[in-house]
Amino acid sequence: MSNIPYKIYLSEEEIPDKWYNVRADMKNKPAPLLNPGTGQPLTAEEMSGIFCEELVKQELDNDTAYFPIPEEIRNFYKMYRPSPVVRAYCLEKKLGTPAEIYYKFEGNNTSGSHKLNSAIAQAYYAKQQGLKGVTTETGAGQWGTALSMACAYLGLDLKVYMVKCSYEQKPFRREVMRTYGASVTPSPSNTTEVGRKILAEFPGTTGSLGCAISEAVEVAVTNPGYRYVLGSVLNQVLLHQSIIGLEAKKALDKYGVTPDIIIGCAGGGSNLGGLISPFMGEKLRGEKDYRFIAVEPASCPSFTRGVYAYDFCDTGKICPLAKMYTLGSSFIPSANHAGGLRFHGMSSTLSQLYDDKLMEAVAVEQTSVFEAAEMFARVEGILPAPESSHAIRVAIDEALKCKETGEKKKILFGLTGTGYFDLVAYEKFNNGEMSDYIPTDEDLAKSISQLPKVK
Amino acid sequence: MSNIPYKIYLSEEEIPDKWYNVRADMKNKPAPLLNPGTGQPLTAEEMSGIFCEELVKQELDNDTAYFPIPEEIRNFYKMYRPSPVVRAYCLEKKLGTPAEIYYKFEGNNTSGSHKLNSAIAQAYYAKQQGLKGVTTETGAGQWGTALSMACAYLGLDLKVYMVKCSYEQKPFRREVMRTYGASVTPSPSNTTEVGRKILAEFPGTTGSLGCAISEAVEVAVTNPGYRYVLGSVLNQVLLHQSIIGLEAKKALDKYGVTPDIIIGCAGGGSNLGGLISPFMGEKLRGEKDYRFIAVEPASCPSFTRGVYAYDFCDTGKICPLAKMYTLGSSFIPSANHAGGLRFHGMSSTLSQLYDDKLMEAVAVEQTSVFEAAEMFARVEGILPAPESSHAIRVAIDEALKCKETGEKKKILFGLTGTGYFDLVAYEKFNNGEMSDYIPTDEDLAKSISQLPKVK
Repeated sequence: MSNIPYKIYLSEEEIPDKWYNVRADMKNKPAPLLNPGTGQPLTAEEMSGIFCEELVKQELDNDTAYFPIPEEIRNFYKMYRPSPVVRAYCLEKKLGTPAEIYYKFEGNNTSGSHKLNSAIAQAYYAKQQGLKGVTTETGAGQWGTALSMACAYLGLDLKVYMVKCSYEQKPFRREVMRTYGASVTPSPSNTTEVGRKILAEFPGTTGSLGCAISEAVEVAVTNPGYRYVLGSVLNQVLLHQSIIGLEAKKALDKYGVTPDIIIGCAGGGSNLGGLISPFMGEKLRGEKDYRFIAVEPASCPSFTRGVYAYDFCDTGKICPLAKMYTLGSSFIPSANHAGGLRFHGMSSTLSQLYDDKLMEAVAVEQTSVFEAAEMFARVEGILPAPESSHAIRVAIDEALKCKETGEKKKILFGLTGTGYFDLVAYEKFNNGEMSDYIPTDEDLAKSISQLPKVK
Repeated sequence: MSNIPYKIYLSEEEIPDKWYNVRADMKNKPAPLLNPGTGQPLTAEEMSGIFCEELVKQELDNDTAYFPIPEEIRNFYKMYRPSPVVRAYCLEKKLGTPAEIYYKFEGNNTSGSHKLNSAIAQAYYAKQQGLKGVTTETGAGQWGTALSMACAYLGLDLKVYMVKCSYEQKPFRREVMRTYGASVTPSPSNTTEVGRKILAEFPGTTGSLGCAISEAVEVAVTNPGYRYVLGSVLNQVLLHQSIIGLEAKKALDKYGVTPDIIIGCAGGGSNLGGLISPFMGEKLRGEKDYRFIAVEPASCPSFTRGVYAYDFCDTGKICPLAKMYTLGSSFIPSANHAGGLRFHGMSSTLSQLYDDKLMEAVAVEQTSVFEAAEMFARVEGILPAPESSHAIRVAIDEALKCKETGEKKKILFGLTGTGYFDLVAYEKFNNGEMSDYIPTDEDLAKSISQLPKVK
């Protein structure tokens, strides 16, 4: 065994004191958000009715490379960061690969994922602006949980709209949010105009993420002292999540390890964008080369089978238009898809990098993902989230290629979180009842054909 | 803020390489286990039909102070240890106390608790002995989960008997165990003689821990190549759990911190015994003085309202007799008791220390425990297990006393695990539906009157 420990922990003083904005080093900047009414780029003023002012600045700034992390956020980070880079000795041994496998583990906090990194930042800027509270939507509840922790810490009110079927069928994350003092409303609800309209039209509906977004945005813009916050897709979220990549790079640098391949799961792009940022910066500046692999579910393949075009970010079509790899805002993954990574589109920043061929993407099927998750859990001890297990799948595949070729590649992947709240899916897998569904070309053609017209 | 970080992590090289056996420093040794048939101390030979040979040695050895930790166990420890000692700056601030509060956090692993520390050791010795597998019982599933992880790592078969009502109502830990490859059988079952007998007598029974123990022991003694393992109460378990206290002491020593008060929750005693061991050793040797506080539920108050006497370890009365503080093996905590810490007795080692007045004990009610848990979660970020929250409750109470007196005491408590699988209880608390139940003197007199007669 080498002199690299199982877990490389930085000290608290080594937590980065700046976030890195990869857009600053991109030649082709990500396309701006558009006002769906005018078709023109959204102005800071237009955005600040929905988002906090400081976050609007971060959203629009394509030039500043580093943003200082305020001390209060750093102090919060110290409660659960730095997160470890783990050398997967046991997985390597199990695979019999000459490759070295490393993972950055973001699951050691009560939200169970990396979402907390941006939640605390967004809550902090809301507090700084003197707001009373924020609103958001949540599906299974990972983002809502993280935000409820951040708001409890800062004494900020939080109203979460949770997709009704999740609210009823997945009560545990709901109770975590309530324990942290958030109000959690099943969506659609009669607390908003848009909710009442939907309930009148579809009385038996169990809700959707698009509908929950609409309710959360309505509450934010109609209640003085509130703004809306979002856990992925946006540039600001990737900026905050750069802490993942910055810490990972610092830890690996300490031991002289330069990864050859960097792998992350991709839904809206928050984790992948954060993990690869500083490495991508080096690649963009021509200092080093890396292979980056985005891993998405075959059931929601925005990079590998989507188109690069302007689209709505929500199914309710009330949010700004973003240019991104998209399957169309009416696309909904098959009901048999177990985990997250359900967003129909992809971060504009990552979409531009992918379009510029700076990054690869692969789509994987969920039974193979759970096979990887099970193997990983048994040898590495950690029960991974289904989302994270997409990255595990491809890390294993790449390590097995090394076994064939004898190459000693260094593989780094993002282990975004734990699967404690995903045991219904694990049960399905354990019982041999899990299946795969890949959307047909006709399915995709239909939702893609409904993209908005933008000149 | 002082120069003490939020989290004190040791390096992997600093993980202790020996367990500490507190019995070696005790003047009054814990009373031996008795054969219930003969009333005589159990011999190594009698024990080795049920337990692994090396574990029998550890169980019976009251003299050896240090046992080397085998390298394979140390390597497993490296996957989730050292665990941090956390300075609870945010809790101190919230309370406005001059006291310094520290906690040793054992929840950062998939089993979600300290149970893994002994599970890997017991599984390792079973493997060394060339056994095919081990059997055990589990209630809510914390111990079963930990053992399934250890057995998966070592390639050992594991048969878990899970109390039927937990199996059905708490399916998530069951699925974690299955993901790790364990077979999980709802108890009582028709796979054992004792199970069939109970099912015939009580067809609708939802099971009990005592019954699950009986089934697990029967399978171990009737199947060649199997032994039975237990997650608490036994001397061997306290020995393995001493890793908690040894690490905590090393971390605090590094920063020159000597705790005045050390607090742990107490069910069977595995966590408390492990946490206090090395500190108690100093006290026993007259080197230093500490206050030790065992915290137990008011609904299952073995230290504070039990008697010190020989009793059965299981409700089925097939296991050896142990001398301990006990409420009687027929005692069952009220159904409204939410968490663990349900055992009717207490580790013989801790019982002797308590009887010798080397340790205090307090009993707390569960609504006040969940109030402490909620406050802790909101300021410190971690969602604590109900068991661990008993220690939080008393740590807060002691810190508030310091606020009154102005004393700057240093308080260390054990945060044994996370509450991700206890959200039904949190939901009850969040809905204001949690109540307290304290057994009456008549309740206790009844179960205590049924103690076995031992000369």
